[in-house]
Amino acid sequence: MTLVIGYLAAFLGTVCWIPQAWKAWASRDTAALSLPSNLMFLATVSLWLLYGILVVDWPLIVANICAVTAVLAIVTAKLKFK
Amino acid sequence: MTLVIGYLAAFLGTVCWIPQAWKAWASRDTAALSLPSNLMFLATVSLWLLYGILVVDWPLIVANICAVTAVLAIVTAKLKFK
Repeated sequence: MTLVIGYLAAFLGTVCWIPQAWKAWASRDTAALSLPSNLMFLATVSLWLLYGILVVDWPLIVANICAVTAVLAIVTAKLKFK
Repeated sequence: MTLVIGYLAAFLGTVCWIPQAWKAWASRDTAALSLPSNLMFLATVSLWLLYGILVVDWPLIVANICAVTAVLAIVTAKLKFK
């Protein structure tokens, strides 16, 4: 049960930024998005990816490759459409 | 070094949504924020908090109490100012 909750949290944390990335690129409206928050979050998932690589933890690596991709798309949209 | 990267990622992941919550409430503009993304992320940090409580991991508990608070503020702003 505890493990299921951990895996569910990891899965949701991986996919949850896809709708935001989609919305930012489809609407070209990023006015309400905080650049500092999204840059810090990009740093966060990049550091988790680096940490996953260093400790050779594949679930951490796969999850954070997905997260880095989605958050990079959000940050790029914010910088492009501001 | 690896541990420092892990702690830095955990710290950044905790504080990174504070500017977004502040911006949403100060500007009352939440049009560009994706409600599905923020609801899924609220579920994510809530599940991590629950997981932290179940495995009695205090760094996980403290970090996710902060994250739940910030993301709850963002979701509330999105629902209030939409």
